[in-house]
Amino acid sequence: MQRTSFGQMPCPVARSLEKVGEWWSILILRDAFYGLTRFDQFQSSLGIAPNMLTRRLKALVGAGLLERRLYQQRPPRYEYMLTAMGRDFRPVLWTLAAWGSKHLAPEGQSIILIDSSSGAAIEPIVVDARTGRPLSEGVRVVAGPAADDRMRDRFAPRVAIEP
Amino acid sequence: MQRTSFGQMPCPVARSLEKVGEWWSILILRDAFYGLTRFDQFQSSLGIAPNMLTRRLKALVGAGLLERRLYQQRPPRYEYMLTAMGRDFRPVLWTLAAWGSKHLAPEGQSIILIDSSSGAAIEPIVVDARTGRPLSEGVRVVAGPAADDRMRDRFAPRVAIEP
Repeated sequence: MQRTSFGQMPCPVARSLEKVGEWWSILILRDAFYGLTRFDQFQSSLGIAPNMLTRRLKALVGAGLLERRLYQQRPPRYEYMLTAMGRDFRPVLWTLAAWGSKHLAPEGQSIILIDSSSGAAIEPIVVDARTGRPLSEGVRVVAGPAADDRMRDRFAPRVAIEP
Repeated sequence: MQRTSFGQMPCPVARSLEKVGEWWSILILRDAFYGLTRFDQFQSSLGIAPNMLTRRLKALVGAGLLERRLYQQRPPRYEYMLTAMGRDFRPVLWTLAAWGSKHLAPEGQSIILIDSSSGAAIEPIVVDARTGRPLSEGVRVVAGPAADDRMRDRFAPRVAIEP
């Protein structure tokens, strides 16, 4: 599919979408977090066409989120493991799952996140690591050191920090 | 683009992607959080083709994340405002931006989230609302009340809760 390259944009959201901004990629990552590693496991879980799955796995390996590992010599068979960069993507899936559970599951939750030691249900929320305060309306975006002129223009007037 | 419907899957991640699983949609939401409301503002920010923008805005309105509001009678002009459901999507953007900033910005951060009252930089992390503990390796997924047989099969054996 022909599309604009988001990888050249300075915005970290756009760059992230360049790497994983495709439905299947995100569901493949989800399944990788569930412990799936093999081509046929992903295919059976997702009902995805093999050529599409091959492309998406290759893209995720190329983007550095998965690594391909030979697990059998004859015939050669590979499995796909999350890299550190891939594992760092989990918070996105947690927030996406929480949003979907809240707004798109009128019949009730189909999955529940639990703490594996206590068994208690977990409700994922985003907080500031430093203060522990939930992020809310009080969050603003300002241009960082690597912002380009366009981003500085955008964030300068719009996000005056209220005293 | 012809594709599988994820909306019929019980998984909340899949359903979320059905609603917003498209690069442009997520960047339109990002811009809406930055305060953009009008067609020409989105178009100029994103460099998106008008017909594509029309389609994506319509889809976001249809999905319940944006609402269209008449702000001028003659000629009729509309603006697009985030709904409560749309505002709830912010945690996904925060985690996506944090991941992109960490892994895809070798030249430094282009945007920084700040607390608008203190001006201090914010580092978004996901925690359990109940305990305040950061979500990490100890998170497991179990089938919820609305899981289908397939999801029960998947989560039953795989996610035995360790004592």
